[in-house]
Amino acid sequence: MRAITIRDDVLRYRDDLPEPIAAADEVVVDVTQAGICETDLQLVRGYMGFAGILGHEFVGIATSGSFEGQRVVGEINCNCRACPRCDSGLGNHCSKRTVIGIDRHDGAFAERIAVPQHNLHSVPDTVTDDEAVFVEPLAAAFEILQQVKVADSDRVAILGDGRLGYLCAQVIGSSTRRMTAVGKHRLKLDRFARIGVSTVNLDDVDAEPVFDVVVDCTGSVTGLPLALSLVRPRGTVVMKTTVASRHHLSLAPIVIDEITLVGSRCGPFDKALAALQERTVDVSDLITHRYPLEGAEAALESAAQHDSFKVVFDVQSNGA
Amino acid sequence: MRAITIRDDVLRYRDDLPEPIAAADEVVVDVTQAGICETDLQLVRGYMGFAGILGHEFVGIATSGSFEGQRVVGEINCNCRACPRCDSGLGNHCSKRTVIGIDRHDGAFAERIAVPQHNLHSVPDTVTDDEAVFVEPLAAAFEILQQVKVADSDRVAILGDGRLGYLCAQVIGSSTRRMTAVGKHRLKLDRFARIGVSTVNLDDVDAEPVFDVVVDCTGSVTGLPLALSLVRPRGTVVMKTTVASRHHLSLAPIVIDEITLVGSRCGPFDKALAALQERTVDVSDLITHRYPLEGAEAALESAAQHDSFKVVFDVQSNGA
Repeated sequence: MRAITIRDDVLRYRDDLPEPIAAADEVVVDVTQAGICETDLQLVRGYMGFAGILGHEFVGIATSGSFEGQRVVGEINCNCRACPRCDSGLGNHCSKRTVIGIDRHDGAFAERIAVPQHNLHSVPDTVTDDEAVFVEPLAAAFEILQQVKVADSDRVAILGDGRLGYLCAQVIGSSTRRMTAVGKHRLKLDRFARIGVSTVNLDDVDAEPVFDVVVDCTGSVTGLPLALSLVRPRGTVVMKTTVASRHHLSLAPIVIDEITLVGSRCGPFDKALAALQERTVDVSDLITHRYPLEGAEAALESAAQHDSFKVVFDVQSNGA
Repeated sequence: MRAITIRDDVLRYRDDLPEPIAAADEVVVDVTQAGICETDLQLVRGYMGFAGILGHEFVGIATSGSFEGQRVVGEINCNCRACPRCDSGLGNHCSKRTVIGIDRHDGAFAERIAVPQHNLHSVPDTVTDDEAVFVEPLAAAFEILQQVKVADSDRVAILGDGRLGYLCAQVIGSSTRRMTAVGKHRLKLDRFARIGVSTVNLDDVDAEPVFDVVVDCTGSVTGLPLALSLVRPRGTVVMKTTVASRHHLSLAPIVIDEITLVGSRCGPFDKALAALQERTVDVSDLITHRYPLEGAEAALESAAQHDSFKVVFDVQSNGA
């Protein structure tokens, strides 16, 4: 089958890969559409040392199991469902887990993918494929509200004007309207402005510690020091993006100002699907570029460019 | 008067300093006893660039105000009591604050010290000076329970076998008995063992992420990476000590394992005084060395040694 792989940091489109073999608890999904995420760009740079088929944001059609023939999205953590962590509700942190397209489990930049049955969620008819492809990152945005209580009087800063920052802004918008997005790109910031979020260019940031909550979606080592300069004493910094490189910074402000730092990763798919169905989150105009799998390199390059927002693979297209 | 100053990282005992001048809201306290803390050692190394009289843990006798003639201890943050932060209960984080013996306010390694009246707390008769001198660090230990909910089933690791770690262990002991102290010094770890805390030498630590809460009291840049290796996914790391130097580490585990990092500084004096009065915390055998102010250098050297625990200045002694 056709798919996009990385190995030793080399990205390749291939049309000669074997079909996925579903394990006992897995279902093969015909992938319809798959989205490129910042983590994919980091993986290509060597983060996690992943080798295999890339891609973890997808929508497709289940070919067997209880959702056979239905459109589905899939959670990315493949847990053992037997260990103490899984038993205690920490399945996403199962120490035996593999992660689709990230850690020892082939991903969704492929015609077909094997996914554990219990990871799948049916997509309601009113949610399009173009919307459903955002469920995974949207769920990650909802994870913030599972972890941090945001009051309607809270001032929230979103660092990073990209895809994830924009989803976080929409999700947090259900709790407070007092939001400011900090970014480098006027066109991207304009998206935030259109949904009522104040915007400020990174170069013009007034580093006053006035925000109750700061969400770092920069995917950069510069995000955390900026967040610490903006959060008020006893405030909260949410670290929403992983960074492959090391930080070199003073953490004394965390102690002196009694900051709470919260690492945040995968979130609840049910909340993301409900938000799309109820139209409380709008992702309808976020896809700026579409590629067939054959366009792997161009697609990933595009996803790293300033003029793109969401780049997706139309997987069933053959590029003709 | 006699006092111990630092300026440009030089520690000096002096007997020619002017008497403190109390501001309108301040009271002069005759210092009886003052304790040396890890922060003092960091200040001598240049942390905060402090210049003035050192010392922020003390017990003494108020010479005026509503506590005149009474034994008192004093909170160290001198707040403006007028700004929005002070109004909202964040007085310890007042942006105009000075901090006794740490930041632009002369400290307690002196015969007399001027302290804001509202910072003072009366010491109950049943609490000795040898105990009261621990109120400030003990309050800092109680701050942890103000910030983090510790359940009786929680496993807690205390990193650092020194003074603050031991106070934290006693305070957290009211919430859970499942505690492990990690340190380098057998004699210090033995103190923890005597109050029922499991102990392990740093060299023998099994870096399994099994602790619900890890409290870093090491005062070292090595504390945080160790804490991150010991805390379970979705667990909490309390950063209890400031470190003057920069950290150089990967923070990706905070995101991947969804760790919460909580900076923790000064705490509630009333809870510390109540614990000493009610004997729920025992500090009776912690003072290992006593010096007159004249013994400044020897005292601070002693406080940095492995065979000392708490080192105090008996301020009214003249070394004769």
